[in-house]
Amino acid sequence: MKKSIGGKTLVFPAPVLIVGTYDDAHKPNVMAVAWGGICCSQPPCVAVSLRKATYSYGNIVSRKAFTVNIPSEQQVREADYFGMASGRDEDKFQRTGLTPVASELVDAPYIAEFPMVLECRVLHTIEIGLHTEFVGEILDIKAEETVIGENGNPDMERLKPIAYEPLNRRYFSIGGLLGKAHSVGREIGD
Amino acid sequence: MKKSIGGKTLVFPAPVLIVGTYDDAHKPNVMAVAWGGICCSQPPCVAVSLRKATYSYGNIVSRKAFTVNIPSEQQVREADYFGMASGRDEDKFQRTGLTPVASELVDAPYIAEFPMVLECRVLHTIEIGLHTEFVGEILDIKAEETVIGENGNPDMERLKPIAYEPLNRRYFSIGGLLGKAHSVGREIGD
Repeated sequence: MKKSIGGKTLVFPAPVLIVGTYDDAHKPNVMAVAWGGICCSQPPCVAVSLRKATYSYGNIVSRKAFTVNIPSEQQVREADYFGMASGRDEDKFQRTGLTPVASELVDAPYIAEFPMVLECRVLHTIEIGLHTEFVGEILDIKAEETVIGENGNPDMERLKPIAYEPLNRRYFSIGGLLGKAHSVGREIGD
Repeated sequence: MKKSIGGKTLVFPAPVLIVGTYDDAHKPNVMAVAWGGICCSQPPCVAVSLRKATYSYGNIVSRKAFTVNIPSEQQVREADYFGMASGRDEDKFQRTGLTPVASELVDAPYIAEFPMVLECRVLHTIEIGLHTEFVGEILDIKAEETVIGENGNPDMERLKPIAYEPLNRRYFSIGGLLGKAHSVGREIGD
């Protein structure tokens, strides 16, 4: 029996996306975003939603660019901190000891120590309500060689990303393999 | 050392969202979508991206409504099948033996046996490229009482959703607790 819980913001699992930007003084900033994900295959695009009140919002509007850094589970403390502090008040790179690297493709920094980054230029800006959604074209993805599998793709088992649980606000690791897509359901169609 | 892998569609983890719609003959259909997620807190909104070629695309355009059903890991076979077959050729409810339930809030069906559903009306339609993004206002969420925790929120440990790995196209379960948000990173800010 299903119970109504009201109009809430809940999808399982949500990602932990660390958005990298430059401010007007070219100071690098990062913030944690759980509202986002891939939104188009051609051109390859990722969407991230930010409140106007955030420091990163203004940075993206000015620079028309951002990066999306994917933390591994070992970096959950830094990722969580990036979602609490504001770049208006704190230098989050200095506080964490992480290293900003200037993207050569877009006007935004990424985190050297995080295993994977998407370099994005803003294609669309959609005013939804409290959040503004930025759709960024993914010009390149860069990943540590240690997380790239034999087929050349970044591998989720090697990268060990974080799954976020909205409402209860908890972080989880990724568990065991359930099966291959376009395969485990094949018998139903036959 | 980071290696460039090109502009690809990769974020870890992606969700498995089963989008429910009615066609012009009021036949219920479902399809699996990995490109989507929450995109606004107020009003609460979820985004799903579909190719125009899908049967569900036309259904959403006509009905201006859809549901987002979240499968548990025990339903990975059905979820995978929903991403392979087209409602144009097959009755996916009949094939899986699952039960369509008419939403009382929006003009779309949901899956009785899946543990959670978001009932959505279309607020925005954004043409990005190969994919069109539909932003739906979440009018209500309904969840099985067995997946609702003591605080009244659906609980990810009880629901056991599926994490999807793009490119390598694999499904994973959710693993162990890494920590509480706005908590594990607090010491960095102090």
